[in-house]
Amino acid sequence: MNIDVERFLQDLDTLRQIGRFNDTGVHRPTFSDDDMESRRWLAREMEAVGLEATIDGIGNVFGRNKGPGPFVLVGSHLETQNYAGWLDGVLGVVAALALARAGMSVDVCAYCDEEAHFGDFIGARSLIGQFSEQDMDAARNRHNGSPLRDALKRVGLDGVPRLRLDEARYKGAFEMHIEQGTQLERAGERIGVVTGIVGIRQWKIIVEGQQDHTGGTTMAERRDAGLSAVRILAAIDNEFPRVCGPRSVWTTGKIVLEPNSAQIIPGRAELYFSFRDLDPNILDAMERCLRSICQEANRRERCTVSIEPIGHTTPSPCDPSMQAALRQAASELCPGKWQSMPSGAIHDSQILSQLLPVSMLFVPSIDGISHHYREDTSPDDLRLGLQVLARGVELFLAG
Amino acid sequence: MNIDVERFLQDLDTLRQIGRFNDTGVHRPTFSDDDMESRRWLAREMEAVGLEATIDGIGNVFGRNKGPGPFVLVGSHLETQNYAGWLDGVLGVVAALALARAGMSVDVCAYCDEEAHFGDFIGARSLIGQFSEQDMDAARNRHNGSPLRDALKRVGLDGVPRLRLDEARYKGAFEMHIEQGTQLERAGERIGVVTGIVGIRQWKIIVEGQQDHTGGTTMAERRDAGLSAVRILAAIDNEFPRVCGPRSVWTTGKIVLEPNSAQIIPGRAELYFSFRDLDPNILDAMERCLRSICQEANRRERCTVSIEPIGHTTPSPCDPSMQAALRQAASELCPGKWQSMPSGAIHDSQILSQLLPVSMLFVPSIDGISHHYREDTSPDDLRLGLQVLARGVELFLAG
Repeated sequence: MNIDVERFLQDLDTLRQIGRFNDTGVHRPTFSDDDMESRRWLAREMEAVGLEATIDGIGNVFGRNKGPGPFVLVGSHLETQNYAGWLDGVLGVVAALALARAGMSVDVCAYCDEEAHFGDFIGARSLIGQFSEQDMDAARNRHNGSPLRDALKRVGLDGVPRLRLDEARYKGAFEMHIEQGTQLERAGERIGVVTGIVGIRQWKIIVEGQQDHTGGTTMAERRDAGLSAVRILAAIDNEFPRVCGPRSVWTTGKIVLEPNSAQIIPGRAELYFSFRDLDPNILDAMERCLRSICQEANRRERCTVSIEPIGHTTPSPCDPSMQAALRQAASELCPGKWQSMPSGAIHDSQILSQLLPVSMLFVPSIDGISHHYREDTSPDDLRLGLQVLARGVELFLAG
Repeated sequence: MNIDVERFLQDLDTLRQIGRFNDTGVHRPTFSDDDMESRRWLAREMEAVGLEATIDGIGNVFGRNKGPGPFVLVGSHLETQNYAGWLDGVLGVVAALALARAGMSVDVCAYCDEEAHFGDFIGARSLIGQFSEQDMDAARNRHNGSPLRDALKRVGLDGVPRLRLDEARYKGAFEMHIEQGTQLERAGERIGVVTGIVGIRQWKIIVEGQQDHTGGTTMAERRDAGLSAVRILAAIDNEFPRVCGPRSVWTTGKIVLEPNSAQIIPGRAELYFSFRDLDPNILDAMERCLRSICQEANRRERCTVSIEPIGHTTPSPCDPSMQAALRQAASELCPGKWQSMPSGAIHDSQILSQLLPVSMLFVPSIDGISHHYREDTSPDDLRLGLQVLARGVELFLAG
């Protein structure tokens, strides 16, 4: 295996120039001119390393290996969040290209729009046959509401056929990514072998009370939706530690009081609450706990509480033998400097996992920063990550 | 005493037509064309009942009694909140006019801008000498930021002298008002004799943590400002009942999380919290409790908590002999159908109380609604309110 690590770093830098902003950042939303330039660049590079390149009818850039199998699929995504960083997604695509350049039995794919400018994983879902023509009709740009179909027309992809993954062709799918957290950095480690992508359950908790003036309404008369909301959140804070797992997380990121005015008793509160874990049993336990808390609130409080699921992904465990190959590679290349860890963030691999065994490899994010122009990883960690990925793929293909 | 109750109702209706909206509501912000029309109407009516009328250089409409003293000052305000009701403020002005019409020894005043389009009680503060030329220079319309001076120029009041209250002239100041709550209605009562206007202490509680991604940040790493805020509010909910008085109220009306996004751990939270009571010792106890909770939060939480006073009014107890006169009047005219009660809302009388003994009389608000086009009081309650006020003033002037 002769992996060109410096060319890999150079490719990362080349892509950083396309849509560069604020010196270190990249702004390359899906189907922007810069985004399409990066897709065409990738297709040319795929051809240059001997792959058969296609940009399909939803923007996936696919490089098919012309050699004999068995193959693994390796990739991630090219587009960025608005005004974001240079490594999120791109790293996994350029690493996959480097494996192909080294002559490994890989297909390379940049799954389109993981960053959800037009929808949830539309590229990866299209590849596995879970994004219909009706879904395409309905998809809109989440920033400006313009139709996906118009964007595809503008970039010349309307009417271009969409690829479908030939699952029989692959032993599995690998994805290398930045951690987007600080667990590796805090532990002083350089590689994370991902055990799985956590499932997420998201909820809107709605509390309905009575809007009133703070001055004229006695405490005994009030139906304060904000206060009932605080009691629910305090109960979650007390009860969730009893049912969670060691890597569970739960978060209230958004609170909307109505009218949210200092001198008016809130008549309504909306709480946006979510929790994540790799274990479906723990997710179920947390959901039962949440439902009990809301039920109890309806017994105790003067306000009425309802709960509405607003998002739900199932956990995607990584394939044990693919994980074993990556652990072996990490043990060889950075002994004592790696850990197994779940991915708290979502990734294309969780879509692919519906058809293929998947596995992911993390490199550290400096200060845990992503989706920001300061997103970065040290060149040595980037080099090591590529080498561990290559060695892991080699071991997996051999075993 | 020969009080013309039907003329009083007719005057209320006349003023309702000036700035009427949505059939039952009134939109008459300070120094709008409709507001100035209502002020000129009042000045004409004052003259018609024998008072010497002045619209002063800050918009106060003052009717000076030409008879022999001793006098009481009676009034309230004419302007409304935006798109609000027909009785808030106007009731007290029209009632005062009715007393003057009946030949009672009253001066009548519509204190300008109690509804704070340009500032806090600017009319009443100007009358008692607590609104300087510099204050006038600085005052801005809170909706559009335009200077008070420009508004005064537009309505022809710039350069007009401002009146100063001759405190030696009065035995006290009365104000009749709608309750703006449901305590009378719920008790099935028709008159509230106000014991005082509560003091208000308003705070901004600032919680500073670390904004992070919900997926990649373990519970052990987080500095969740929203969570610390919830714990502070839960502590207030637990501790305030131990220190409050029987009529204390406390409210968190506004919560601002940053960035307030479902999938991001809040890095900062601002809580707008206030409490009210008539007793300064209870206000002090509640403030000590709040400060202790924030101090304790700084010991326990990973986020830092600071507290900033953003408003402070002192309680204004009503004068005992004026209250006694109103209680006597209520006992005569609606025995068993009245109560003594604090005013949770703020009123011009609290400014006047710095110079004069003050007292207030409440009539019921249907459904507790005010600052809304549905604000209303039954005609019978309006009639009774005027009669109790007149009788109370008569008793007070006689005693």
